[in-house]
Amino acid sequence: MGDDRETPAPFEPVGTIRAKRDGRALEPERIAWAIDAYVKGSFAEEQMAALLMAIFWRGMDERELAAWTEAMIASGERSDLSDLGPAVVDKHSTGGVGDKVSLALVPLVAACGAVVPQVSGRGLGHTGGTLDKMESIPGWRAHLGTDEQHRILATCGCMIAAATERFVPADRRLYALRDITGTVESIPLIASSIMSKKIAEGARALLLDVKVGQGAFMEQRSDAEALAETMVGIGSAHGVRTAAMLTSMDVPLGQAVGNAIEVAEAIDVLRGGGPEDLRTIVLEEARAMLALVGIDTDPAQALADGRALERFSEMVRLQGGDPDAPLPEGVHLADVPAPRSGWLTKLEARKVGMAAWRLGAGRSRPGEAVSKTAGVRCLVKPGQAVSEGQPVVALFGDDPSRTAGALAELAGGVEVGDEPPEPRPLVLGRIGC
Amino acid sequence: MGDDRETPAPFEPVGTIRAKRDGRALEPERIAWAIDAYVKGSFAEEQMAALLMAIFWRGMDERELAAWTEAMIASGERSDLSDLGPAVVDKHSTGGVGDKVSLALVPLVAACGAVVPQVSGRGLGHTGGTLDKMESIPGWRAHLGTDEQHRILATCGCMIAAATERFVPADRRLYALRDITGTVESIPLIASSIMSKKIAEGARALLLDVKVGQGAFMEQRSDAEALAETMVGIGSAHGVRTAAMLTSMDVPLGQAVGNAIEVAEAIDVLRGGGPEDLRTIVLEEARAMLALVGIDTDPAQALADGRALERFSEMVRLQGGDPDAPLPEGVHLADVPAPRSGWLTKLEARKVGMAAWRLGAGRSRPGEAVSKTAGVRCLVKPGQAVSEGQPVVALFGDDPSRTAGALAELAGGVEVGDEPPEPRPLVLGRIGC
Repeated sequence: MGDDRETPAPFEPVGTIRAKRDGRALEPERIAWAIDAYVKGSFAEEQMAALLMAIFWRGMDERELAAWTEAMIASGERSDLSDLGPAVVDKHSTGGVGDKVSLALVPLVAACGAVVPQVSGRGLGHTGGTLDKMESIPGWRAHLGTDEQHRILATCGCMIAAATERFVPADRRLYALRDITGTVESIPLIASSIMSKKIAEGARALLLDVKVGQGAFMEQRSDAEALAETMVGIGSAHGVRTAAMLTSMDVPLGQAVGNAIEVAEAIDVLRGGGPEDLRTIVLEEARAMLALVGIDTDPAQALADGRALERFSEMVRLQGGDPDAPLPEGVHLADVPAPRSGWLTKLEARKVGMAAWRLGAGRSRPGEAVSKTAGVRCLVKPGQAVSEGQPVVALFGDDPSRTAGALAELAGGVEVGDEPPEPRPLVLGRIGC
Repeated sequence: MGDDRETPAPFEPVGTIRAKRDGRALEPERIAWAIDAYVKGSFAEEQMAALLMAIFWRGMDERELAAWTEAMIASGERSDLSDLGPAVVDKHSTGGVGDKVSLALVPLVAACGAVVPQVSGRGLGHTGGTLDKMESIPGWRAHLGTDEQHRILATCGCMIAAATERFVPADRRLYALRDITGTVESIPLIASSIMSKKIAEGARALLLDVKVGQGAFMEQRSDAEALAETMVGIGSAHGVRTAAMLTSMDVPLGQAVGNAIEVAEAIDVLRGGGPEDLRTIVLEEARAMLALVGIDTDPAQALADGRALERFSEMVRLQGGDPDAPLPEGVHLADVPAPRSGWLTKLEARKVGMAAWRLGAGRSRPGEAVSKTAGVRCLVKPGQAVSEGQPVVALFGDDPSRTAGALAELAGGVEVGDEPPEPRPLVLGRIGC
């Protein structure tokens, strides 16, 4: 009946879904209403699922993205780190195989005078998580209270901590919904998810490491560029100085892929050594982060003189860990030998990541425990010479029953040719750094 | 962990959503699995919402549509009317303002020798429902048991009945989900919803009346054509001889728009009179339906000699109604006068439908009661001459408080010009008839 209808509310779910479905931009006020209504339950799960698929299809423009991110942030608290000074800078990587960059980068940048409040996550699938790696250090705790975080940052200028429930609760629900509705791989949804958390957590400046290649979430450079540009745009819209590097992820970064094995390699870098590719990326990212907050210091010096390592040890201690305790080591389970002599031309990041995952380094469901010692060491990297039978990849862990599965993942992942491959740059592109 | 994973099931929801999202055709077995899993609860509502939006975006090809329709049918029972002979033919209209065609058509086609098991629905929004109209007849019942339906069809060759729960339960759930997720207006979803019900209900042949124009669900001829072709394709894939007519819905059909007022007008047609446009459409559709089942009889003769009216009365009696009881009549509430003298050039179907709805003839929520007497009579139709102040539209009903709202809906819906408008054909296109 006509006249017993209420005057319609300015926004309602079906009209919102239809607007996006038909390719119209959503008004900022409508987006703020929709996220709030979703958190409060009047925008139903199935309606949000349809809206997410419509966003996957139609995208969001800059204004919508800023509003979506703002609305996500508004669902929780927002950290104020202004008492820590102006040089507060964080870093986010989209994740890759052997990507232990943050473990060395965070204390290195802090040793150069910045404050780095790194909030990180756990791994799922073939790329590892920073927290899982750090938890191989005896006693180290990822979960810190607000006051504890603040105290640690004030004391040593850096931390690596798990996200708390206080920030962006809407993202946790949206991410779980995206995961079961085939709407994960949407650039605006990925970008707003990452940026809302980084902004809520109080970063004043942010460096994004967007990995590109078959071992990364973004396999195509064009997708990675679009994601990087989108995130930089969101950062700018929220007053966060944001820069991005596109880095290659066709080959594992460094030699170690796993948990304790990656911590050990990060410590090698902090000691002034470590694999060249890893050391290069750590220094490039450190320079970019320092530039974002106007600090003119050479980070290579902080590696050389031990300040970075010292800062790492202090951070570990402040988070309950023992930096001097030996890291757990796995049993050497098997090797993949070179099929012939020549030059290593291929070492597929995804296959190496999958092998480490099969050995137990990763999880297939959120909340699953991971093995500290499981992992893969890449003894030879593309561009190096090998002899027939020489081990290229070594498998470690604590469960020999997993060896066969891990070896199967590596099938076809190692190739040897007559010529060295063209060298590939590590840094493929930069935005604002 | 790798090796404690189960071998994945052949199909699962996220992979299914992603396949459609990425524009791939879904295998028939996957579609059968998905609908069954949805009905049984292992394909969640939010996952189906995402899949429906992906279908809205990507469409379905003929093979997918046939499988989707088959899977919908398989969710319930399928009627067997084969003992009623080969000439079982039904009709479906996509709905329009003043569309009381079925009320006259069903008994007319039965009077010519076919069997017409019309299962119909109720109205929502500005277009009325056949059952709502028929329920203005004192005593008439829409809800018939299976045996009763069969007995009535065997006795008088026709019925007009409400759908039962037995047929296509998946459609009821999918429709409710589409309604709240902005996925109603998808041609493959509309077509499979309509056709699954018609096929499950036992039609051997089917005429579709797809309305086109601003008073119809499909405003664009190209959309109406696509819908008609899609439905004809599904019918063919299921062995149902299916034809379609595209008919104009810019102006209300006939003069009456409402419930009892439309029944009275349908009876006028069955008596050999009635408005010319309505009579034309009824005869065109009757000829098409008879042709589909190979009956070579002139339906105009069955109108002229009273056989069609007699069949209507018999059907009404068999469904508990009294065909001789006077129909309820509303109070004459108001008129819309011609603003000047000239030729009526416009009488907007949607506005007339909305006015009838405001008067109480329609509902805004499923399950709401409707007024039997509320309605609008179009006293002048486009192409006829009018004098200034002459009533063009008359409003009837039982609740004078609704008059102002109904008049407001009609604002701008009536136009008078200096020249008669170009005559518009009633039948805009035909497929297979």
